[in-house]
Amino acid sequence: MASSTLSAPVMQKDIHGWNPCARISSNDRVNSHRTFNCSLSTNTVRKPLFFRAHPASICPRHVSASQRYWLDTKKFPVSCASKFQLDDVIESQQFDTDILNGIFEVAFEMERIEKNSPGSNILKGYLMATLFYEPSTRTRLSFESAMKRLGGEVLTTENAREFSSAAKGETLEDTIRTVEGYSDIIILRHFEGGAAKRAASTATIPVINAGDGPGQHPTQALLDVYTIKREIGRLDGISLGLVGDLANGRTVRSLAYLIAKYKKVKIYFVAPDVVKMKDDIKDYLTSMGVEWEESSDLLEVASKCDVVYQTRIQKERFGERIDLYEAARGKYIVDKKVLDVLPKHAVIMHPLPRLDEITVDVDGDPRAAYFRQAKNGLYIRMALLKLLLLGW
Amino acid sequence: MASSTLSAPVMQKDIHGWNPCARISSNDRVNSHRTFNCSLSTNTVRKPLFFRAHPASICPRHVSASQRYWLDTKKFPVSCASKFQLDDVIESQQFDTDILNGIFEVAFEMERIEKNSPGSNILKGYLMATLFYEPSTRTRLSFESAMKRLGGEVLTTENAREFSSAAKGETLEDTIRTVEGYSDIIILRHFEGGAAKRAASTATIPVINAGDGPGQHPTQALLDVYTIKREIGRLDGISLGLVGDLANGRTVRSLAYLIAKYKKVKIYFVAPDVVKMKDDIKDYLTSMGVEWEESSDLLEVASKCDVVYQTRIQKERFGERIDLYEAARGKYIVDKKVLDVLPKHAVIMHPLPRLDEITVDVDGDPRAAYFRQAKNGLYIRMALLKLLLLGW
Amino acid sequence: MASSTLSAPVMQKDIHGWNPCARISSNDRVNSHRTFNCSLSTNTVRKPLFFRAHPASICPRHVSASQRYWLDTKKFPVSCASKFQLDDVIESQQFDTDILNGIFEVAFEMERIEKNSPGSNILKGYLMATLFYEPSTRTRLSFESAMKRLGGEVLTTENAREFSSAAKGETLEDTIRTVEGYSDIIILRHFEGGAAKRAASTATIPVINAGDGPGQHPTQALLDVYTIKREIGRLDGISLGLVGDLANGRTVRSLAYLIAKYKKVKIYFVAPDVVKMKDDIKDYLTSMGVEWEESSDLLEVASKCDVVYQTRIQKERFGERIDLYEAARGKYIVDKKVLDVLPKHAVIMHPLPRLDEITVDVDGDPRAAYFRQAKNGLYIRMALLKLLLLGW
Repeated sequence: MASSTLSAPVMQKDIHGWNPCARISSNDRVNSHRTFNCSLSTNTVRKPLFFRAHPASICPRHVSASQRYWLDTKKFPVSCASKFQLDDVIESQQFDTDILNGIFEVAFEMERIEKNSPGSNILKGYLMATLFYEPSTRTRLSFESAMKRLGGEVLTTENAREFSSAAKGETLEDTIRTVEGYSDIIILRHFEGGAAKRAASTATIPVINAGDGPGQHPTQALLDVYTIKREIGRLDGISLGLVGDLANGRTVRSLAYLIAKYKKVKIYFVAPDVVKMKDDIKDYLTSMGVEWEESSDLLEVASKCDVVYQTRIQKERFGERIDLYEAARGKYIVDKKVLDVLPKHAVIMHPLPRLDEITVDVDGDPRAAYFRQAKNGLYIRMALLKLLLLGW
Repeated sequence: MASSTLSAPVMQKDIHGWNPCARISSNDRVNSHRTFNCSLSTNTVRKPLFFRAHPASICPRHVSASQRYWLDTKKFPVSCASKFQLDDVIESQQFDTDILNGIFEVAFEMERIEKNSPGSNILKGYLMATLFYEPSTRTRLSFESAMKRLGGEVLTTENAREFSSAAKGETLEDTIRTVEGYSDIIILRHFEGGAAKRAASTATIPVINAGDGPGQHPTQALLDVYTIKREIGRLDGISLGLVGDLANGRTVRSLAYLIAKYKKVKIYFVAPDVVKMKDDIKDYLTSMGVEWEESSDLLEVASKCDVVYQTRIQKERFGERIDLYEAARGKYIVDKKVLDVLPKHAVIMHPLPRLDEITVDVDGDPRAAYFRQAKNGLYIRMALLKLLLLGW
Repeated sequence: MASSTLSAPVMQKDIHGWNPCARISSNDRVNSHRTFNCSLSTNTVRKPLFFRAHPASICPRHVSASQRYWLDTKKFPVSCASKFQLDDVIESQQFDTDILNGIFEVAFEMERIEKNSPGSNILKGYLMATLFYEPSTRTRLSFESAMKRLGGEVLTTENAREFSSAAKGETLEDTIRTVEGYSDIIILRHFEGGAAKRAASTATIPVINAGDGPGQHPTQALLDVYTIKREIGRLDGISLGLVGDLANGRTVRSLAYLIAKYKKVKIYFVAPDVVKMKDDIKDYLTSMGVEWEESSDLLEVASKCDVVYQTRIQKERFGERIDLYEAARGKYIVDKKVLDVLPKHAVIMHPLPRLDEITVDVDGDPRAAYFRQAKNGLYIRMALLKLLLLGW
């Protein structure tokens, strides 16, 4: 997530996968896409983006009317239906609060599907390809569960490096063009930043970024914000303590970025000196009018927060300086003492996996929300698959 | 399978996944589970076990009345329905002859489903996670085939070591809590003895042990006993020759343990000196009133047996003593000469894979039951999936 | 593909998986299979081949009448239905033009299924095992997509070397007998030539060869010929330029072999000196009355061809002679200059993956057919799965 991108989120809007007023005028749509297409045409030759699989409109696979009235009971609010069209999910910057709220509404519906029925069939006949260039079993299982809970089918590869013939030298673009012939949507995990954007520019079917190297992991960011909304009941006016490795943690950076779009947010950074939050996010928060401060007193912060978001100190970032890692690691632990001062309505979150930065005796407290948070990843991914394949 | 466990199978009954009279009184059930829960509460914080997915009663996913009357034709005998409730399948010790016979009845029904229809849908809408910490493709494919033959869906991982972030240090318990959010049942293969029991104590959904290190592989034990029942027609009064690596063979040890629960069983051990059956099993058999003897004359044993159960000498157990391995390996071969003396009604079994301890010219004889035995693994696993997810 | 086999394709006919007049007389069928069976009986003991799963006749899994009238709209021409019965797909030599045309008709129908419906269910209840002894993700995904597009289910293994217990020494035959118990059709990828034929001789269910070492990859050959038919509209009278690594390229050799069965075919070979087409194929073409010539002028060949079939120079074939590889690699590139001389109706094909032997600025030209060719692999595999499991 480059700082230049951070400072210009609005400019990205038309580019990343959705465009306003998609259904109001097909002409507008063609035009907005044409602009995008031209900007890429120097190094890629491809079908114009307005040919991509637009669910419920020009998707080459038939969508029945009854599928569009999904669940047969609930049509989505006109506000959503007339405003957005999700094509791809590439980076957090593509979402504003309107689209976030729209996705969260669908995710909430998904909880109902998953819990109350023997399985939905709204994605029956659709095939998802999980094209993973590096293994990430947690993320993969979550996406595959989401697809199957909705009646869809899955093609899996975890060794896409071999597939793409790294040895043989095939480009990502060529791989995408082959895989899009076998499936209806691609979930891409890649080791290079920007890979998802390249894939989405090539593909004529929707692409979801499931993490591209040091770059983005937008579905994790969405599930984090959704969890706060579900647990606390609101996003405006939230107080948020970000704890642990704030320098390298992709999730806390994305969370800070997204939460800043809401009103009257207050953020506390609690990090060991070697892994403090970087200036780009701080500057961005200031520019968005978000109040933030740094603290070294976890207990005091916990007593004032709606959400304590703990993260793992990532050993792999310290290289041979195991001493620095060990020092950073033990500094801020969420334990019973933190629970004692934490407000009754507040929650503890963690992107998982955790080591000992949250002690296991915290797990039984109702405010320990991290496994519910992991489960919310399922609902968010169900919602995105539904939105990309069937529309609102 | 520690000898201490072997000598106290009754004590294990209430603990491992089923409890008598489950449906007669919900109070009883709560109490029996509460006892278990307390005994574990020192090091784990979890929902009480009576919240786990009890098929057809408090399973969070809806089970229709028609699903419970599975196959629309056959209700299970009251004797089963009122007596047992399978929650998990962790170790052979949890089964007595009543529950074994109940499972075998369901497995026999499964043969009918698999052979006579274009596929059953009784598990439609259910998701099984095969969480394998070490690859075991034969076992995995068998479970996945079982689930799909019943209309269910599967999430697969063979590199769960990476998933559980061995490198990152996540505990098995944390992994289980994440995966249970994505699925309805977990099939666990692990490299550590006792892992399945830990997983089942954590999970709020059913867990089946698909082999945990040097520990248990209960579905293999079940399919072996089922095969004898199917091939010979009875289990009481059976004569059984166990041949090959009896010291290290997990399957022959489990088979001896389970078959001892039946009446008037006679067992012959035929093993090279370096891999003789250990005393714990011999003592257990004696305590159960099972007649056993050791022999070095395979032909004589074969002439008196209903079942000759051959096993592979496991090279990996001999370390650098290849000479000992080679000597043990060639000692007892099942070949045409064994077939010549084997009674007409008897069968040859083998857990597979086999090397040359059964010669290929035996394969064509109707008494060669080892590939039918492998197939029975499918039926047993279909039965267990049905029982754990839908109840009797 | 040994030259001896090449020179006697007719002799192979009765052996490889199909036989003429299969439904006219069951006696004939028994006889033709019996011959085959006897020839193998020295070292294998197996059910006679006429017991194998013959779709729509003696397949053990029920096929409804409505499934046989697939798509509920179109019965296949009597000419096909009365002439062939596909049992296995093992090598290109098993196909003559009649059966090729029959397969192509079904593949063309499959395009309609894949594009116009929310998914077919004609293979619902069928399980396909992709038994891959070496990873080939492109081929695997294509087969799995084909199966799922038709409503079937898939068991996947990419590490079948472990499964077959290379370490433990299990034979391919034993593995096949286990896997056939869990599935209805096996897709085999193996590192040894002839493995598919051995598997088919063992299995009582259909086997498709998805590449066996230096041997055959018949579905690739079929999709190549099908692509020419779809793109150019005919196969008789075609002019074909084969470019690149003609010595090692399995695909160009198979294509030359199959295309020779059509009338008035003309083939141009354009290859660097070190990787020229070998004499066995040249002799075969001559014997079949196919006109062929070698050329070093790609532009001149392109100006006269209906199809330019480019291939990758395979670095791995050159060992340490990187200098030879580099020289060969840059020699014949398909670029804009080739497009300039290529006839309007002609197409560029490539088996993929490609490196730079076709420049990316060619991709946007409508005559660049290689991604459509990859997609045709899906249709061919859908057709074969349908034919092997349900019959014509």
